[in-house]
Amino acid sequence: MNVVSYRPAPEELSYTFGGRPAIGRIRPGTIVEMYTEDCFGGRVRSVEDLPSSVCDFPYLNPVTGPFHVEGAEPGDTLALHFVAIEPARDWAVSATFPHFGALTGTHATAMLTPPLEEVVWRYDIDVEKGVARYHARKGDFTVELPLDPMHGTVGVAPGASEARMTITPDAHGGNMDTPELRAGVTVYLGVNVEGGLFAVGDGHARQGHGEVCGTAVEAAMNTVVAVELIKGVSTPWPRLEDDDHLMSTGSARPLEDAFRISQHDLVTWAADLTGLDVLDAYQLVSQIGEAPVGNVCDTNYTMLAKVPKSYLGASGVYESAHERLRALGRRYLAQR
Amino acid sequence: MNVVSYRPAPEELSYTFGGRPAIGRIRPGTIVEMYTEDCFGGRVRSVEDLPSSVCDFPYLNPVTGPFHVEGAEPGDTLALHFVAIEPARDWAVSATFPHFGALTGTHATAMLTPPLEEVVWRYDIDVEKGVARYHARKGDFTVELPLDPMHGTVGVAPGASEARMTITPDAHGGNMDTPELRAGVTVYLGVNVEGGLFAVGDGHARQGHGEVCGTAVEAAMNTVVAVELIKGVSTPWPRLEDDDHLMSTGSARPLEDAFRISQHDLVTWAADLTGLDVLDAYQLVSQIGEAPVGNVCDTNYTMLAKVPKSYLGASGVYESAHERLRALGRRYLAQR
Amino acid sequence: MNVVSYRPAPEELSYTFGGRPAIGRIRPGTIVEMYTEDCFGGRVRSVEDLPSSVCDFPYLNPVTGPFHVEGAEPGDTLALHFVAIEPARDWAVSATFPHFGALTGTHATAMLTPPLEEVVWRYDIDVEKGVARYHARKGDFTVELPLDPMHGTVGVAPGASEARMTITPDAHGGNMDTPELRAGVTVYLGVNVEGGLFAVGDGHARQGHGEVCGTAVEAAMNTVVAVELIKGVSTPWPRLEDDDHLMSTGSARPLEDAFRISQHDLVTWAADLTGLDVLDAYQLVSQIGEAPVGNVCDTNYTMLAKVPKSYLGASGVYESAHERLRALGRRYLAQR
Amino acid sequence: MNVVSYRPAPEELSYTFGGRPAIGRIRPGTIVEMYTEDCFGGRVRSVEDLPSSVCDFPYLNPVTGPFHVEGAEPGDTLALHFVAIEPARDWAVSATFPHFGALTGTHATAMLTPPLEEVVWRYDIDVEKGVARYHARKGDFTVELPLDPMHGTVGVAPGASEARMTITPDAHGGNMDTPELRAGVTVYLGVNVEGGLFAVGDGHARQGHGEVCGTAVEAAMNTVVAVELIKGVSTPWPRLEDDDHLMSTGSARPLEDAFRISQHDLVTWAADLTGLDVLDAYQLVSQIGEAPVGNVCDTNYTMLAKVPKSYLGASGVYESAHERLRALGRRYLAQR
Repeated sequence: MNVVSYRPAPEELSYTFGGRPAIGRIRPGTIVEMYTEDCFGGRVRSVEDLPSSVCDFPYLNPVTGPFHVEGAEPGDTLALHFVAIEPARDWAVSATFPHFGALTGTHATAMLTPPLEEVVWRYDIDVEKGVARYHARKGDFTVELPLDPMHGTVGVAPGASEARMTITPDAHGGNMDTPELRAGVTVYLGVNVEGGLFAVGDGHARQGHGEVCGTAVEAAMNTVVAVELIKGVSTPWPRLEDDDHLMSTGSARPLEDAFRISQHDLVTWAADLTGLDVLDAYQLVSQIGEAPVGNVCDTNYTMLAKVPKSYLGASGVYESAHERLRALGRRYLAQR
Repeated sequence: MNVVSYRPAPEELSYTFGGRPAIGRIRPGTIVEMYTEDCFGGRVRSVEDLPSSVCDFPYLNPVTGPFHVEGAEPGDTLALHFVAIEPARDWAVSATFPHFGALTGTHATAMLTPPLEEVVWRYDIDVEKGVARYHARKGDFTVELPLDPMHGTVGVAPGASEARMTITPDAHGGNMDTPELRAGVTVYLGVNVEGGLFAVGDGHARQGHGEVCGTAVEAAMNTVVAVELIKGVSTPWPRLEDDDHLMSTGSARPLEDAFRISQHDLVTWAADLTGLDVLDAYQLVSQIGEAPVGNVCDTNYTMLAKVPKSYLGASGVYESAHERLRALGRRYLAQR
Repeated sequence: MNVVSYRPAPEELSYTFGGRPAIGRIRPGTIVEMYTEDCFGGRVRSVEDLPSSVCDFPYLNPVTGPFHVEGAEPGDTLALHFVAIEPARDWAVSATFPHFGALTGTHATAMLTPPLEEVVWRYDIDVEKGVARYHARKGDFTVELPLDPMHGTVGVAPGASEARMTITPDAHGGNMDTPELRAGVTVYLGVNVEGGLFAVGDGHARQGHGEVCGTAVEAAMNTVVAVELIKGVSTPWPRLEDDDHLMSTGSARPLEDAFRISQHDLVTWAADLTGLDVLDAYQLVSQIGEAPVGNVCDTNYTMLAKVPKSYLGASGVYESAHERLRALGRRYLAQR
Repeated sequence: MNVVSYRPAPEELSYTFGGRPAIGRIRPGTIVEMYTEDCFGGRVRSVEDLPSSVCDFPYLNPVTGPFHVEGAEPGDTLALHFVAIEPARDWAVSATFPHFGALTGTHATAMLTPPLEEVVWRYDIDVEKGVARYHARKGDFTVELPLDPMHGTVGVAPGASEARMTITPDAHGGNMDTPELRAGVTVYLGVNVEGGLFAVGDGHARQGHGEVCGTAVEAAMNTVVAVELIKGVSTPWPRLEDDDHLMSTGSARPLEDAFRISQHDLVTWAADLTGLDVLDAYQLVSQIGEAPVGNVCDTNYTMLAKVPKSYLGASGVYESAHERLRALGRRYLAQR
C-alpha cells in the first residue's frame, strides 16, 4: 500500500484551482493522508474573531494541494475516493459575514440595504460521541447535532489556462459544498491539464442543504484520499459515486441552470450506462431521481442529480474504480 | 366521525384556484373522501394517446373542489391532513410534451430549437405489491419502482381577487409537485377568502425531485383528507408537517427565489417557535436543514425547507393540529 | 368620429385583468377618452403620505376598464393606439416602499435584512413647459426632467379563466412598465375572451428603464385611445408599433427569460414579415435590435425587443392598423 | 505626444485576463495604436468556414495585450479612452454555433434538444460609406446597416490570482459586449495587480443589444487607445463615460443580478458625485436612467446603467480624465 502524508505549512496553502505548481507528485493507486485547514484558515477561533477582521480577503477557503497525478492528461478522469474525513480539532466555527449567504444582499445580488450583522458561532466537536454542539449567541439554547464530516471543496486545475478562486465551483469542481461528499464516496473529475492538479479543502463537521447562511460547521480535517487515474475516459462535470448511488453535479447561476446541468449529465450518463434511448432515460431519471442541493451562496450555486444504481442496473461504472478504491480504503483503515 | 364523500363528474372538475364557487361546504373536523383525476383528465390511457392530441389545452391538471370550510376567514389557516392517497387504477402514465420540462425550451425559456419529441410512457400499478413498473419505449428495459403516492396540487383560493391556473404554484399553494406531500402529512394553507376554498388534484404514484421531464407517474387517486381550521393564525406560504419534520415551501422563479422564500419562512418560523434570535435561527437552520426540490418545470418552481422538529424542540405547532389530525386519521383507517 | 368618454368613480376602478365584467362596450373604430388614476389610487398626495399607511394593499395599481370590444373573440387581436397621454394634475409622486424595488429584498427575493426606508417624493408637473421637477428629500438638490408620459399598465383579460392582479405583467399585457408605451404608439394584444376586455392604468409622467426603485413619476392621466379589432390574427405576447419601429415584449422571471420571450417573438415575427428563414432573421435581429428594459421590480420582469421597420422592409403590419389609427388620432387631435 | 504601435503576431494573442506576462510597458499618457483580431482569430473568412471546424476551442476571442501601465497598483484606476476603432478589413463575419446564443440550449442552460444549425454570415464592410451589408443565407434579401464600431472585450487582470477566459465578463471587465464601448468613450477599470495589465479585443462593426445569436458583426480592428492612470481611486466595476453620460456595468447571472450590480454602482456613484443621500440618488436614477443591455449570451451576462451627466450636475469625474483624454485623442486624430 502506497501511502503519502502531507501537512501544508500555512504559506503552502493554495487559494486557486489552476495557476499554481503542484506541491508534490503521486502515482495512481496512492493513498494520501492530508491535513486541510478550515475555510477561515484557522483564524476564527472564538466568537470574538470576526472573519472580516481576522481574515485577509480574498484569501479565504484554502485548499491542500495541488497534487500532480503521474500520467494524467486532458481527456482522462481522476477518481478520488474519500477514505476518511476526521475533524482535527475539538471545535469548529460558523459565521454570517457581510454580503454573503442566501438571505442577504451580496456583491452580485446587489442591494442598498445594509448587510446582516457579522456573527460567529463556535461549536464543540466530540468525535467520540459523534456530535457537534450548537450554542445560540443570544439566550442559552443549545442542541447536539450529529457529525457528518464532508469536504466543501475538491477540484482540479480548470482548462483554457484559467485559474479560479477556490470559492467558485464550476466544471473543474471547486467549492461545491455538498454534504454528499463524505467518507465512502468517490469523486470523478475530468482532467484538463497534465497531472490533473487536484486539491482538497473546506472541511465541514456537518452542513445543511444549501449552506443557507454562507458557512457550515467549518472544521480543519485529517482526511485520507485514495487516488486512481482512468485513462481515456472524460468527465464533463464532477460526478460522485457511493455504494448505492450515482450522482452528477452542476454549478452555475441561476440555480435552475445548476439543476439543468446536473440532470442533463445524469440523463445522458444513464443512457450511456443502460443503453436506453435518451428520452427513455429522461423519463426514468425523472421518476427515480433526487436533487440534493449543494450550495446556494457561493459565486456559482451547486446542485446534484442522484439515482440509485439498482434501478439502472448499473454497476462497475468507471471501470469499477469505486469498488476497487472502496476496498483499498477499507484495507487501509483496517491496518491503520 | 364526520365523513363526506365526493366524486366529481368530469364537468365538475376545476382548472383554477379562485374564480369558481365551492362544490360543497364542510365543517372543520370533517374527513373528506375524494376522487381525483390525473393531470391529463384521464384521457391519456395508452402510449398512443399523445397529450397534445387528446387533451384540451389549457384545461389540464384538474382539481377536485373547491370545498368551502365553514368559518374560514382571511387570516386563518386551514390544516389539511392527508390520511390516505391510493392509486385508483392499475395503470398510470407519464409523458414528455412540447415546450414543457426542465431540459427543453419552454414558453418562458423561449428557444428557436424544435421541441423534444412527444412520448408517453404507461406504468403498471400494483398497489398490493407496492410498485409501479416502468417500461422503456425503445428496447425492452423494464424496472419496478416503489410506489410513493402523493398529490402534486393542493391549494386554496388566492387573495387579491385572483384566479390562477391550477398548474401554477404560488403563496396559495397550487401545483407544488413535491413528493413530501404524501399520506401522513399535514399541509397548512393561509386562508385568503371566506371559506378558504381548498381543492386537491394531480396525484402521482411516485415522482422524482424536480419532476424533470415535466410529468410524474400520473395517477387518479382515492384520497382521504381530514380538515381543521385554525382561527386567527396566518400562514404566509404553504407549510407541511409530518411526524418528525417541519417544512416551508416557496414557489417562484428563478429557482433561488423559491429557495429563498422557503428558507426565509422556515428561519423566521423556527425563531418564533423557539424564541431564538433570528440570526441564531438562521445559523441553526443552515446546519440542520434539508432543501427538497419540488418542481423545476412548472410556471413557478417549488422548493421546500425542511428540519427535524427534534433539533428545534418544537412540538405542538399550530395548536397541535397535526397530532390531532394524525390520530383522527388513524381512527378512520382502523374502522374503514 | 365615434368618441366615448369615461371617468371611473373610485369604486369602479379595477384591480385585476379578468374576473370582472366590462364597464362598457365599444365598437371597433371608437376613440376612448379616459381618466386613469395613479398607481396609489391618488391617495399619496404629499411626502407625508406613506403608501403603506394610506393605501389598502393589495388594492394598488387601479386600471380604468375593462372595455368590451364588440366582435372580439379568442384568436383576434386588439389594436390600441395611444393618441394622447396627458398628466391630469400639476403634481406626481414616487416612493420606495418596503419589499419592493430592484435593490432591496422582496417577497420573492426574500432576505433577512430589514427593508429600505419608506420615502415619498413629490414632483411638480408643468405640462406647458414639458417638465417634471425632482426635489431631493434631504438637502436642496432639485432638477427639471423632461416629461415623457406613458402608461405602465395596459392589458386584456387573460385566458384559461385566470384573473391576475394588475401589477403582474404576462402574455395578456398588464403592468409592463415600459417607457415605449407613450403617445403615438399602437399596442397589439391577443384576445383571450369574448370582448377582449382591455383596461389601462398606471400613468407615469416619466420613467427610467427598469423602474429601479419600484415606482416611476406616478401620475393620473387624461388619456385617449383609438381602438381597432383585427379579426383572425393572433398575437402571442403584447407587441408595440411606432412610426419607425416594431417591438415585441416578454414578461417573466428571471430577466433573461423576459429577454428570450421578446427576442423569440421578434425573430419569428420578423421571419414571417420578411419571408426570411428563421436563422437568417435571428442573425439580422441580432445586429439591428435594441432591447429596452421595461421593469425589473414587478412580479414578472419585462423586456422589449425593438427593431427599425426600415431594415426589415416591413410596413403595413397588422393590416396597417398603426398607420390607420395614427391618422385617426391626428384627426381627433386636430379637431379637439 | 507619446504614441506606441503594436500589432501582435498570432502567437502573441492572449486568451485570458490574468495568468500571462505583459507584452509591453507603457507610461500613463501614452496613445496606443493596436491591431485586434476578430473573435474567431480571423479564421472564419467565408460562409464555408464553420467555427467549430476552423477554430480551436476554447482558444476563441483573442485579445491584444496585456499592457503593463507603469505605476499602476491595486486600488488605482486605469482610464482607457477609445480614440478610434476602425475596421481593418472590407469584410466581417457572424455565426450561430452550437450551444451558444440566447435562444438555444447552452452548456449552462443544458437541454436535451439538438443544437441549432451552425451557420456563418459574411458582411461587406464599406468604411467610406459607413455601412455593413447583410446578406441572408437563404434567399436574396440584403440590407445595408450603419457601421457602429465597438470593442466587445476590454479588461485588466483580475484580483485574487485569478486568470479568466477572455470570453467571461466580470468585475475586471472582459467580454462585456456592449455597443456603448465605441470611439469617444472612456472606460474606467479598477487595478487589481501591479501594472494593471489591460488588453483589448473582439471588435464589432456593429452589434444589437444582447448579442442575441451569440456573435456580432465580428471584425478585426485598428484601434487607438489613450491611457491614463488615476492614482488612489478605486473602481469596483468597469465604468464608462462619454461626453454626455456616465455608465456603470454589471456582469453576472441571472440577468437581473447584472442589472442590480450596474444600478447599485450607478446609484452609489451618483450619491458620491452629487452629495445626495443614497435614497435620493436611488429615486433620481430610477427616473432618468437607461439600462442598455450588453450581452445575454456569454458566460456572464452584462448590463449597463446610464444617466445623462447634466441631470446630476456631474462633470469632471475621475479628475476630468475623460475631458483630458478626449482632447488628447482629438489632437492625435488631427495630426495623424
